[in-house]
Amino acid sequence: MRGILLLRSAHPDKTDWGYFFLNQKIVIVGLGLIGGSLSKAFRKYTDCSIAGIDSNPEVLKAALSCGAIDKIGNDEDIRTADLLYLCLYPQADIDFIAANLDLIGPNCVVTDACGIKSEICTHLPQMAKEHGLTFVGGHPMAGREKSGFAASDADLFAGASYIIVPCGAPQSAIDLLKAVAAALGFGGTVTTTPEHHDQMIAFTSQLPHVLACAYVMSPRCPEHNGFSAGSYRDVSRVANINEQLWSELFIDNQDALVEELNTLIANITDIKDAVAQGDGETLRALLRKGRQVKERLGE
Amino acid sequence: MRGILLLRSAHPDKTDWGYFFLNQKIVIVGLGLIGGSLSKAFRKYTDCSIAGIDSNPEVLKAALSCGAIDKIGNDEDIRTADLLYLCLYPQADIDFIAANLDLIGPNCVVTDACGIKSEICTHLPQMAKEHGLTFVGGHPMAGREKSGFAASDADLFAGASYIIVPCGAPQSAIDLLKAVAAALGFGGTVTTTPEHHDQMIAFTSQLPHVLACAYVMSPRCPEHNGFSAGSYRDVSRVANINEQLWSELFIDNQDALVEELNTLIANITDIKDAVAQGDGETLRALLRKGRQVKERLGE
Repeated sequence: MRGILLLRSAHPDKTDWGYFFLNQKIVIVGLGLIGGSLSKAFRKYTDCSIAGIDSNPEVLKAALSCGAIDKIGNDEDIRTADLLYLCLYPQADIDFIAANLDLIGPNCVVTDACGIKSEICTHLPQMAKEHGLTFVGGHPMAGREKSGFAASDADLFAGASYIIVPCGAPQSAIDLLKAVAAALGFGGTVTTTPEHHDQMIAFTSQLPHVLACAYVMSPRCPEHNGFSAGSYRDVSRVANINEQLWSELFIDNQDALVEELNTLIANITDIKDAVAQGDGETLRALLRKGRQVKERLGE
Repeated sequence: MRGILLLRSAHPDKTDWGYFFLNQKIVIVGLGLIGGSLSKAFRKYTDCSIAGIDSNPEVLKAALSCGAIDKIGNDEDIRTADLLYLCLYPQADIDFIAANLDLIGPNCVVTDACGIKSEICTHLPQMAKEHGLTFVGGHPMAGREKSGFAASDADLFAGASYIIVPCGAPQSAIDLLKAVAAALGFGGTVTTTPEHHDQMIAFTSQLPHVLACAYVMSPRCPEHNGFSAGSYRDVSRVANINEQLWSELFIDNQDALVEELNTLIANITDIKDAVAQGDGETLRALLRKGRQVKERLGE
C-alpha cells in the first residue's frame, strides 16, 4: 500500500498536523548536508523507502551503513519514484533532470532544495511542461556551519520554515510538499514566487554569509580569543562557508544581493559618520531605529 | 573574619581554581544587567556581604527582595568596602568616584565593568594616584540582548572571559580580580592595556552591534518571518540595543571603531564587486579567505 494518509505524524512535536506517509518511494539526489538530513528525516519520521544518488561512493556507503537510505538509486528507482528530491547545486540539479528526462514518470513530483530560485525556476518548470513532469520548487530553511553528509541530521529541520515556490505546479504537488514539511518536523510553510523568494533570501541568508566572511577578514580576528563573547561568535559563525556553492548562489542572485549589500553599506556608513563626527544625537537616533525595528518584530 | 582563602570555589564548575571569599564587603554601584548579575553571582558563589547603590528605588527594592543585595549602600558601606564595583556608564562611573573620593578607604579596591577603557583609564588611575586609592580596570565579557536588573543572572558570566586592565594597579589588586573571576565562574582572565583592549573590543563587540542595527534597517526586515533561519537570527540578535549606553561607548572608542568599520566596508565592497561582475573566481577566492581564517581559529 502506498499513499499519504491523513493520520498522525510520527514526529513527536507534530501530533496535531495529521499526515503520515505510507511507503512512498523517495529518490534523493545529492546526499550532502540537506539531502543527507532529508533522507535521515524521512527514515526517522516516515515509512517511505529511500533511494540515494550521489557521485561519491564513500558517501553512498556511509548513507547505506547508517540506514539513511535503503539502497543506491538506479534508473528503475527514478522511473518508479513518487517524489524526486534534487539536493545538488543549482546548475547540477538542472543537468540531472535534463539527463534523466525520459526516466521520470508522470506521477512523480520533482522538487529541489536550492537556496536561490531564479535559475531553477527558469529552467525546470519549462522542462517539466515540455515533458509532462511535475515540478514544484522548495527551500527547506535550515543549514549548519558545516557541510556534507557527515554533518547531516534527521532533526536539522525541526521548527524551520519550508518555503514552497509553486512555479505553476498543480495543487496536489504543493499539498505533497506541505505534507512532507509536516511529517519531517518543519515549523510551517510559506508559498511565494521565485522573485520574492530570492529578494528575501538575499537579506535573510546571503547577507549574513557575506558579512561573516567580510567580518573575519579584519586583522584583529586571529587575536580575538579572550576578548570575545556571544556577539563575535554569532556574526562569525557562518564564515566557515562552502565557497563553491555560495559563489554560485550569490551570482545567481546578483541583482537582489547587490541591492541588499548597497543598502547595508549605506546604513553602516551612516552610523560610522555619526561616530567619526562624535555626533551623539544622530548616533542615538540611528541605533534607536535599529532597536525599534527589532522590538516591533518581537523576536 | 574577612579575607580571601585559597580554598575551593563554591562554583560547581570551578572546583580546581582554589579561591573562596570569606565575608568580604562588596559595594556594587549600578544594578543594571552587569551590576545585577555580579551581585547575584557574589550572592550565589561567595560569602561576601553585598551593598547595592542605584538611582532607581524600584531596582533597589527588587534587588533586596530577591536577595541579590544584603542592603542599600550608604556612605558607611563605601567607607568600609573591600571591593567597590562601578557598573554605571563610563562618565557616570567617573563622576561617582569624583563625588565620593573622601569616603573610599586606602584598602578598598575600586574596579569597573566598562566596555571601553580609554575614558575610564584616563581619569580613574590619575584620581586614584592623587587620593591614595587603588583602581584596577575590568571588563567582564558577557552580555545579553536585554538590559536592566530584570535581565540579570547569577550565571551570566559562566565560561566568559574577564579582561583585566591594570592601569598601574598593584599586583594584589590584579590578583583580587582574578580571584573574583574564578569564584564567579568566569572561564579565564586576560590582562592588557587600555589601548589594546579598546582596539580588540571595537572588532569583537562594537562592530557586531553596529552591524546588527545596520542589518535590520533593510526594507526587507519586517517581512523576514518564514524566510529566515539561524543566520538572520544571529546577525540581528543584538540590534535590540541600549542606544544611550552604546552611543557613549562608540564615541569613546571613535578611532578604533571607525578603523574597523572602514576595514569591514572595504571587505564587503570587494565581495559585492565580485558578485556584481559575476566574477566567480575572485568571489570564491574571497570567500575561501574567510573560511580559512575561521578554520584556522578552529571555533
